Order: sequence, then C-alpha cells, then structure tokens
Amino acid sequence: MTPKEIIDKMMAEDKMSQWLGIEILNYDPGSVSVRMTVRAEMVNGFNVTHGGITYSLADSALAFSANSHGIRSMSIETSISHLKSVHVDDVLTVKTTQLTLTRKTGVYMMDVTNQKNELVAHFKGTVYRSDKVWD
Amino acid sequence: MTPKEIIDKMMAEDKMSQWLGIEILNYDPGSVSVRMTVRAEMVNGFNVTHGGITYSLADSALAFSANSHGIRSMSIETSISHLKSVHVDDVLTVKTTQLTLTRKTGVYMMDVTNQKNELVAHFKGTVYRSDKVWD
Amino acid sequence: MTPKEIIDKMMAEDKMSQWLGIEILNYDPGSVSVRMTVRAEMVNGFNVTHGGITYSLADSALAFSANSHGIRSMSIETSISHLKSVHVDDVLTVKTTQLTLTRKTGVYMMDVTNQKNELVAHFKGTVYRSDKVWD
Amino acid sequence: MTPKEIIDKMMAEDKMSQWLGIEILNYDPGSVSVRMTVRAEMVNGFNVTHGGITYSLADSALAFSANSHGIRSMSIETSISHLKSVHVDDVLTVKTTQLTLTRKTGVYMMDVTNQKNELVAHFKGTVYRSDKVWD
Repeated sequence: MTPKEIIDKMMAEDKMSQWLGIEILNYDPGSVSVRMTVRAEMVNGFNVTHGGITYSLADSALAFSANSHGIRSMSIETSISHLKSVHVDDVLTVKTTQLTLTRKTGVYMMDVTNQKNELVAHFKGTVYRSDKVWD
Repeated sequence: MTPKEIIDKMMAEDKMSQWLGIEILNYDPGSVSVRMTVRAEMVNGFNVTHGGITYSLADSALAFSANSHGIRSMSIETSISHLKSVHVDDVLTVKTTQLTLTRKTGVYMMDVTNQKNELVAHFKGTVYRSDKVWD
Repeated sequence: MTPKEIIDKMMAEDKMSQWLGIEILNYDPGSVSVRMTVRAEMVNGFNVTHGGITYSLADSALAFSANSHGIRSMSIETSISHLKSVHVDDVLTVKTTQLTLTRKTGVYMMDVTNQKNELVAHFKGTVYRSDKVWD
Repeated sequence: MTPKEIIDKMMAEDKMSQWLGIEILNYDPGSVSVRMTVRAEMVNGFNVTHGGITYSLADSALAFSANSHGIRSMSIETSISHLKSVHVDDVLTVKTTQLTLTRKTGVYMMDVTNQKNELVAHFKGTVYRSDKVWD
C-alpha cells in the first residue's frame, strides 16, 4: 500500500480524528502534516482549548507519520509542552519531523502552530514498529 | 472556595471533560481521581482507543488536582506512556499522586487503570501556579 | 546468565557508574535498586548537585533493571522531574518499578530519594529490547 | 550582568560541567550552544557513552540558556531521546532553541549532534524562573 492508501484507510476508521475534524495536508513518508479548527465543544474549565485536543491532533499526526512507511507502528511514549493558549476558532497545523527511524523504533517531533504561525505546542513521540506490514 | 466548589465550577465549563463523560471520584486536595467509560466514537485507525482519550482524561485529572488548592494553575509539560491497549466499553480510572508542590509549580503522576485494574497508561504532569486565587 | 551475573558484568565495564560510585542494592529482575553518595565534584553553577548526576544514577538503574531479564536492552526515551535540590554528601537511593514489559519494549519508573527519604526526583524510562541475549 | 558574565560565573563554579569538559560556543541570550569530547571514563556497560553524559551536556546548555536572560532559573522537567550511539572521542555539540519564555517559565529544545553532524539525541527542558536576578 502507498502512504496515501495507508493513511486514508486509517483515517476512514479513526473516529476520534474524524470528530476532531483532522485534515491531512500531505502524505510524505515519515512526516505527515495535519490541520484542524478548534470548536466550542473543545474547551476546558478555563474556557481555553483542552490540552487533550492539541495532544490528540499531534498524536494522530504521529500515527499517520509512523505508519506511512508501511509497517504497523504504535505510540509507546509521548510528551507535549503547552506553550501558548489555544482558543475556539483557532486553526491548528502540525508540522512533523522524523528524528530517527530504526528497524523497530521511530522518534518524531511535532510543532503545533496556530493561524498566526505562533508555536502553541511542541510534541515528541516514540513509536514501536511491529512485524506486521500494511497490506 | 472549597476544592469541591472549584472543581464543580471547572467541570461545569469544561466542555471537553463533559464530552468525555468524566466523573469526579473524590475531591481530595492535590489528588483528585476521575473515571470515564470509552465510547465507540473514541477509537483510532486501529480500532483501539485513541491515545488522546487517555491523555485527555489524565490531563483533566491534572487540572482538577492542581487547581484544588485554590490557586489557578495550568499545565506546562506533560508526558504519557501508553502501556496497554484500551477498548470500547473499557472503564478507565485515574488515580492521582502529587509528587511535589512549591509556591509556583506542582508535579503530578497519574496511573490510569481499566476495569480489570490493569495499568493502561502512566501520565506525568507539571503545572505552573499563577498569582490568581479561585474566588 | 543470572540477573546478578549480567549486572555485575555490566557494572564491571560501566566506567560512568563506577565514577558515580553506584552500589547495587538488589538484583531483582526488572526492579534493580541502586545507591550513591554525592561528591563535591558533582555540583553545578548554583552549588547544588547537577541534574545530570541524578539522571545518570536513575539511567543506570534503568539499564540494570531492563537488562536483568537476560535480553540486551537499551534506553530510547527518558524523562526526569527534578523535585528537590540535592546537595553534597546526600545519599541518593533509586527504587525501580517496572510498569510494563512486552516482547520488544519495557517501561520503568524510578523514584529517587535522599537520606531523609524525601523524593528528590522522579524518572521514567522506555527501553527497546533487542534480539540479543546475555550469554 | 551580561549573558557572558553570568555564564562564565556559572561555569566557574560548575564542577560537573568542568569534569565533562564543556566549552561554551556562544553567549546568545536564550540559546547558548556548547561542545565537549567524550572520554574513555564516560562509557556504560555496553562500552558506548552513558546516557547521563549526553543528558548532562544538554542540561548544562539548558541552565546556561535559561539563566542568560539575567533571572535565576532552574530546571523542573526534562526529557531526552537517545537516537544514536555515542562513542569515545566523539565530539558532541548542543544547539539550543528557546521555544517559549514567559515571566515565570521557559521551554527549550536541544539538538545534540556528533562530529559527523548526525543527530544523536533530542532534549527538551522546562525551567522555572525565580524572583532573583543575577547581580
């Protein structure tokens, strides 16, 4: 399967990414970028966007990027720094960088920016690459 | 305001925690525990629960725990290890431990278990405590 | 090789752990605990113990714990929260908990305490388990 | 005090950074870069460089970068991904990026490369900025 076929198939079953309204911006192996717009139902008790929204968006970008190589891969450890408040109607874009890819692991870095191109979060994810290929 | 008043007020405005179906299990200052049941709309492209769900649940527990002391506090850095797959209908419980609390920062650890009491994720969160009190 | 044989062999070649003065407290598979005493040459520019000392101690405990199962394993992602200042002559003890162990990965948590049994740091480490056994 | 005065003063008391052989490459506020050469006494039980060496180097860069603004700042949470083995005689360079700086916190990212310009580790650090100025 091509990166596009894999990611489209994942996206078709990924109910959470659909609820978030995630749009795939490119299908580059190892560095898939994504975008979404924050909705009113995504805020926390401070009326700013819940940290879980930004995390989920970056975590989906991680899943798409890691799996784009054709090997079923799953996240084992992730961290996120929340750098700037995100508000309703903000458009969040995740730009992905693959830091390393070995036979069994991969490490990715995601920069999350808003529509003013301000960095709102920095995400890092480590994945385990299984023995199963996408077919 | 008491811990209960603060957390109830946060929860009343926290649309994301409402969508998740989060239930507050206790109002102990610094170690609020929470619970939720995973729904079909919360899965990812592998038909297991999206990592963002577990993260969001733990992040809400972090917000409630940190703010329960009466000082407005926000998450600055968090990490989560996904240890075991989570499935639809699983009941997730977060048990919170406050590792440290200083004048301006706090560090918390969250153990996320399923209905079989298996550890499915381990979360760590650092918060910044602002100058504003809850009143 | 037994856990003890593996760890003693690692320790014999581990110049850094020798420099730190690390003592092995137990050889329990998956949860090796260690201890060291901070020396004057280990301080940073604030005259408190350099964060790298506490990290190195916990990272050695991670290596010993992960390899004790007989499979050559290496750290891929680690994080540490520095919770309390550490001073010269403090005796640091690391207590290790294995959060999960799968065929190819393991996740460990290390609590670092001082001689007053105060928690000075919390460390989390993820390892990759190779195909090579200790023999 | 200027960034250079602050960092030189820190370095003069920082016994650990002296032991590592850290060299300051620039004094740019918020993004100090450093370099060191790995010695035989810095290896672990696999005869590769102990993860604590790379961590310590990056953590020193964090301390210098955060304090260069003139406010006494200390690390509260850090993480490091070990991406590639480091060997004796490797020359490690840390390039620092300041992701955010608020009144009380700062977040920094450190890329650690070897003499072949290969990325060997990725470090992220969050600091707390105290009320004390360097004078």
